[in-house]
Amino acid sequence: MDVEQYMQQLGSQARAAARQVAASTTAARNNALLAARDLLDAARPELAAANAEDLQRGAANGLEGPLMDRLELTPARIDTMLEGLTQVASLADPVGAISDMNTMPSGIKVGRMRVPLGVIGIIYESRPNVTVEAASLCLKSGNATILRGGSEALSSNLAIARCLAQGLEQAGLPAAAVQVVDTTDRAAVGRLIAMPEFVDVIVPRGGKGLIERISADAKVPVIKHLDGVCHVYIDEGADLDMAESIAVNAKTQRYGTCNTMETLLVHAAEASAILPRLEQAYGSAGVELRGCERTRAIIAGAVAASEEDWHAEYLAPILAVRVVDDMEQAMAHIDQYSSQHTESIVTADHGRAMRFLREVDSSSVMVNASTRFADGFEYGLGAEIGISTDKLHARGPVGLEGLTSQKYVVMGEGQVRT
Amino acid sequence: MDVEQYMQQLGSQARAAARQVAASTTAARNNALLAARDLLDAARPELAAANAEDLQRGAANGLEGPLMDRLELTPARIDTMLEGLTQVASLADPVGAISDMNTMPSGIKVGRMRVPLGVIGIIYESRPNVTVEAASLCLKSGNATILRGGSEALSSNLAIARCLAQGLEQAGLPAAAVQVVDTTDRAAVGRLIAMPEFVDVIVPRGGKGLIERISADAKVPVIKHLDGVCHVYIDEGADLDMAESIAVNAKTQRYGTCNTMETLLVHAAEASAILPRLEQAYGSAGVELRGCERTRAIIAGAVAASEEDWHAEYLAPILAVRVVDDMEQAMAHIDQYSSQHTESIVTADHGRAMRFLREVDSSSVMVNASTRFADGFEYGLGAEIGISTDKLHARGPVGLEGLTSQKYVVMGEGQVRT
Repeated sequence: MDVEQYMQQLGSQARAAARQVAASTTAARNNALLAARDLLDAARPELAAANAEDLQRGAANGLEGPLMDRLELTPARIDTMLEGLTQVASLADPVGAISDMNTMPSGIKVGRMRVPLGVIGIIYESRPNVTVEAASLCLKSGNATILRGGSEALSSNLAIARCLAQGLEQAGLPAAAVQVVDTTDRAAVGRLIAMPEFVDVIVPRGGKGLIERISADAKVPVIKHLDGVCHVYIDEGADLDMAESIAVNAKTQRYGTCNTMETLLVHAAEASAILPRLEQAYGSAGVELRGCERTRAIIAGAVAASEEDWHAEYLAPILAVRVVDDMEQAMAHIDQYSSQHTESIVTADHGRAMRFLREVDSSSVMVNASTRFADGFEYGLGAEIGISTDKLHARGPVGLEGLTSQKYVVMGEGQVRT
Repeated sequence: MDVEQYMQQLGSQARAAARQVAASTTAARNNALLAARDLLDAARPELAAANAEDLQRGAANGLEGPLMDRLELTPARIDTMLEGLTQVASLADPVGAISDMNTMPSGIKVGRMRVPLGVIGIIYESRPNVTVEAASLCLKSGNATILRGGSEALSSNLAIARCLAQGLEQAGLPAAAVQVVDTTDRAAVGRLIAMPEFVDVIVPRGGKGLIERISADAKVPVIKHLDGVCHVYIDEGADLDMAESIAVNAKTQRYGTCNTMETLLVHAAEASAILPRLEQAYGSAGVELRGCERTRAIIAGAVAASEEDWHAEYLAPILAVRVVDDMEQAMAHIDQYSSQHTESIVTADHGRAMRFLREVDSSSVMVNASTRFADGFEYGLGAEIGISTDKLHARGPVGLEGLTSQKYVVMGEGQVRT
């Protein structure tokens, strides 16, 4: 197979399909999603067979436990995929919404209309359910997609793609609006990220290494998420019950997510009161503590934190803890070590709450809430294609709106410029 | 001079200044702008001397007429610069605005706060007044700037920068919030666009060649404007007086601007009525017409248009004219040849007006108005740093809002995720 030519073809098909999808009705796109859902439901045996192929090949290639687990399309995961399609179909259509329409001194009316981005390339690792999730969000927002999943999941992804294509056709939309790259050749990724004539934006989903490589080489914009080194700062005078509850939840509710707290900052005035309580709570949850000197003076069992710990995204039951003199020092620490994902202050002071909200330069900044809320569903976006740690275009959880842009629309009655 | 080290220093100073500017009050930023205005006004003799240096060097280097003209800081241009500072100071501060604050089922309140991008690198050619314009918009929107102007304008730019720095200091803001690159070494540009740790976005202003080079090499996002191949489509049944007025204005009001019409599309049913009128109007304005076969059957004097003409951004009194069968064909032509800057339909039909608005994929899409309105001031943005032909982040005229981003802010009362 000539990968260059193949990707060129996928790209040009996607570009043509994108025009049709952008001009399609909301009803047609919803119908395609619901038809795909029913087709996937009816294709459970085929999905199982395709997935078994992937699993067998994975086992033969010595794929490790967690990767094998992510690869598996259990009946429950298929149920979740189907529910996801129903849910995405029920979301409001972002496309075509006109906002901020105002009349200018010249008499023209100027507003902004939300429009699809065009063609979105999604690059992801082993989970085949991402195929449905990403394709449905792109389609709902009026875009065409080219999906490049992990090569270990190729059979499953192609089986899913067949149902999606059929669903599109049943709804009178072009099958090429959703295409799965049908080759395991790595050169396909290199092409996908370097065809600005056919692809408008790349959304990589996966580990930091994958995303850094893609960002470095891409010739099109990338909506990306690097890491989540999230902080909670317990302020002087904070309600300590609230502080304990948030600090425990932010760390222990799930360890492997990007919005999990990795470093806890505690005002010196509260350290001796709150740290022993937290030591007990984290102890019973099995969380290892790594602290600064002042922390270790209170929590004797804490390991000494090294410079590396302040940078670490553990994604594990480990927490770095630092005692700070005041909010200034907490914000300076965040400024130095945070990945600008999510930070939260626990405070009773309105002025400091507002300063923290304003001055901390992260995609989500919170007052008196767990960092675990940084999520498209919890934010009411109805869906999430990822969380952006970039500043331009989309920042924080990215829902349907992040897959669109706004153009200016002008309504005149014959006005000319003088 | 070690350019690498020098740029590193500018970058790290800008990053530190950006934090202070982002946290500054609206009043402080406005005071800095107004102080700079007064300082520039008082420094007219120094500005004239610095500009004379540039002009002398330019003449010695054989700089051509239009470039010499752009380089000159006439008293009138200084007046305009000062007025610009007053105007920017009077604009509403975009920073800190919270929108879309809603209460979620969990009880947290989630909204979005507008925040500065951080450090903005501006790369531009010979006009020294851009220094004030760009610096003032970046400062107003809470950002720090590094300005790299044309080397031929270096003395003028440095003289301006001294006033801006003094203005910042008088207002209690760091002088490094606005820095002019003080070297004509081209390597400085290469460094400026490749320091993501210090620079958040690059805004190049200048010719297409400059912008293409910068976009190709940049390691940070670029808000860019390539070309403006703008179209007006005169629909079947359009008011022909309105059509003539718009078609003439869009082409002849100014030839050298990016929102000037370069190709006129005319519905076949109106061609024989409108083209003779336009032939006369364009003729008296001295506009050369290049037409398709059907156009030339009506306007005998029109040159035969080649494939190149449909792609051309003339920026000159030349217009390509094509007769089309219907709006479909007009939109297909636009889709194929437009630079996605600005397109306008002249029509009396509501359905076609709405379809054109929705389906044409350009940064500005208009009904019954001259393309010349595609401009930040005409759109009520109060200012314009440029016009973006990109889709992500900022599309169309970019005002203060385009120099900011939105982060999520969450207000809780102790909520944790379950």
